[in-house]
Amino acid sequence: MMCLVIYDITDDKRRNKLAAMLKVFGLARIQYSAFRGELNSNDRMVLAKKASQFVEDEKDSIFIIPLCDRCLGTATVLSKGGACLVKESKVQIV
Amino acid sequence: MMCLVIYDITDDKRRNKLAAMLKVFGLARIQYSAFRGELNSNDRMVLAKKASQFVEDEKDSIFIIPLCDRCLGTATVLSKGGACLVKESKVQIV
Repeated sequence: MMCLVIYDITDDKRRNKLAAMLKVFGLARIQYSAFRGELNSNDRMVLAKKASQFVEDEKDSIFIIPLCDRCLGTATVLSKGGACLVKESKVQIV
Repeated sequence: MMCLVIYDITDDKRRNKLAAMLKVFGLARIQYSAFRGELNSNDRMVLAKKASQFVEDEKDSIFIIPLCDRCLGTATVLSKGGACLVKESKVQIV
């Protein structure tokens, strides 16, 4: 299932390590603090366990959000640079 | 339907104006560049139209992502500060 990971990590080093880890999981960066990619439920659990080490500050948070085909299909992306969630999402060149 | 809005807006003034507009739409901030709240499909369309004015740079992008109950219910939130997507998401105090 497609999965979106968004995060606020106050510490630069921890934030960069999290981003590197998300790439190892095969996720692609879609925004500065947002990645997406295919993850099954087991992968999501393993990712959540590993990612929790980067949450130290009260202001840190990580959201791991599965996106079903319906949610993906009704998503809207506003971009001039070709950003996309997945092919199915409606991309409006603004 | 619950809706997630995440954005990368390079210009500070435009980014702040977008955040202010999202609050007017009744969305709540959950991360630095992420808001969520209830929006019906018409609201989403109006929001997309209005938000597009803030996308000027090639690196700017806004994702407006509806989240069905199933996606919400299987989302995981890692936080020490009580961040939450909605009550149903599994919040792991790490």
